[in-house]
Amino acid sequence: MYSIKQLQEIVNKQVEELVLPETPIELYEPIKYLMAIGGKRMRPVLTLMGCNLFTDNIEAAKSPALGLEVFHNFTLMHDDIMDNAPIRRGKETVHEKWNSNVAILSGDVMLVKAYELMMQTPDAFLRPVLNIFNKTAAEVCEGQQIDMNFEQLKTVSVDEYLNMIALKTAVLLGACLQTGALLGNASNEDAEHLYQLGKNLGIAFQLQDDILDVYGEPEKFGKQVGGDIIANKKTFLLIKTLELADSETLISLERWLNTDVFISEQKVKAVTDIYNQLNVKALAEAQMQQYVNLALNHLNEVRTGQERKQPLIDFANQLLVREQ
Amino acid sequence: MYSIKQLQEIVNKQVEELVLPETPIELYEPIKYLMAIGGKRMRPVLTLMGCNLFTDNIEAAKSPALGLEVFHNFTLMHDDIMDNAPIRRGKETVHEKWNSNVAILSGDVMLVKAYELMMQTPDAFLRPVLNIFNKTAAEVCEGQQIDMNFEQLKTVSVDEYLNMIALKTAVLLGACLQTGALLGNASNEDAEHLYQLGKNLGIAFQLQDDILDVYGEPEKFGKQVGGDIIANKKTFLLIKTLELADSETLISLERWLNTDVFISEQKVKAVTDIYNQLNVKALAEAQMQQYVNLALNHLNEVRTGQERKQPLIDFANQLLVREQ
Repeated sequence: MYSIKQLQEIVNKQVEELVLPETPIELYEPIKYLMAIGGKRMRPVLTLMGCNLFTDNIEAAKSPALGLEVFHNFTLMHDDIMDNAPIRRGKETVHEKWNSNVAILSGDVMLVKAYELMMQTPDAFLRPVLNIFNKTAAEVCEGQQIDMNFEQLKTVSVDEYLNMIALKTAVLLGACLQTGALLGNASNEDAEHLYQLGKNLGIAFQLQDDILDVYGEPEKFGKQVGGDIIANKKTFLLIKTLELADSETLISLERWLNTDVFISEQKVKAVTDIYNQLNVKALAEAQMQQYVNLALNHLNEVRTGQERKQPLIDFANQLLVREQ
Repeated sequence: MYSIKQLQEIVNKQVEELVLPETPIELYEPIKYLMAIGGKRMRPVLTLMGCNLFTDNIEAAKSPALGLEVFHNFTLMHDDIMDNAPIRRGKETVHEKWNSNVAILSGDVMLVKAYELMMQTPDAFLRPVLNIFNKTAAEVCEGQQIDMNFEQLKTVSVDEYLNMIALKTAVLLGACLQTGALLGNASNEDAEHLYQLGKNLGIAFQLQDDILDVYGEPEKFGKQVGGDIIANKKTFLLIKTLELADSETLISLERWLNTDVFISEQKVKAVTDIYNQLNVKALAEAQMQQYVNLALNHLNEVRTGQERKQPLIDFANQLLVREQ
């Protein structure tokens, strides 16, 4: 059995050894650039963990694990164009460093490379692995579209929000675990439990992100605290607040949402005060815990020894206590 | 055996029956829009012809044929953003009718749907069919990048140009015939000959396009005559002219290439006069005929009866005599 650290080292090696053509450089250099600037490599590690849950021979999962990381980075490259984001992981985004056309086309070829890597799998697994990948890839695009649509809407329900983050973020984590499990010769039933584990964990993880954006310690969180508030981003906290606020609080909140001229610190403080008043942090934490419990229930159902499940439990704990 | 007309009807029915989710509409509506506004459906017809060359049962090739058409339309959707093109087949392009973000994301999901359709193929063909598709998809992206790079270059050699059009346009036609052939139980050798047939025919087709843009009759050609000249597009005609012109002609030509202020008709006439002087139309036609001959040689090598080859010969003739 591998430790998380060992799996991370295997993944880093895989990423370093990713083979891409040399030319045209405008097409392949941005892929190398984006893949090299890091990230947590959560998706390939989860893929290997899904496999390692069932077997010590994780060879078959290595290329698909890398394929899932390449896919994730493809979505980042295109999302950053759409979101007009200048910075990713502290570096210039691809469309900033080169231009939008390069980011579009380089992203396209990245998706093709992801498929190539997913296909480096034994024949018996080829169709099931690609079926999961196709379904997930379409869902991630749907999630991004729904997220962009939210910007144009005045209100969004909690259910609509949870559906969006499931599609945009969580299903891919589910797909990673499920793919790894299948490649580790798990039964379809166990692989499905792992999908549900990853999906529910992913939703919990995104809810935590909403909380940390407001309540995280800047040094540990690594982003500007209050960024979501400044941008009027429809997070769980804002959606829940709009749902619960009395008319007086609502007027005060909407004044902040509708003004273009404000001092950031003042807006962040005022909106956070409203969140505190309505106790939405505790509601978000409760919602998050519900998803964590769902995830752990699915892990419980998986028919393999408890000791093999421990790394996954540790990984989930690492993910979910970034702040404390 | 099917006639070209019958295959075209089968393809049109396939396109009409393409199943896509209803929502998010911003994601799927543009795909339906672009697929509905037509085009020659050359790629799926070639796929079915490749199959029908070897068997009368073309069932297995139907979904992949549609997948190759969806892929082609995906490249159009993204290329139109990159080329800033307002019109496609007489209608607004997707990024014009909606916006660039919609065209990026809708295109992305279109590529995923193309893979889904390619996968609707018997297990025995799954890996070979997807290997051809992956290789071709990456090459088409490379061709588009090289084409964009050409705009920044002062000179391009004929070989570089032929390589670019091979990647951007021709390899996909080769892949269609090869995929169809494999799904018709052709030998790998015959399928390879069909790939070469399609690729060489595709290069010939593109060279003809360069000729027609200058010398075609507007009613039959369906585009503005001289569009390439107005845009300084590095076509075979311009590249060959820059290679052959004496210094005096070169000065005159470069005056037209370097001025932003001109009357279109005057520029088209002046540059066409230079082309005529150097006889580059005949050189382009000779080059084109070379590729047609190469294509027909490969068809000759295919081990199936002459009568089964006739529709492909007819199709090639239809493609290559759009003007006369």
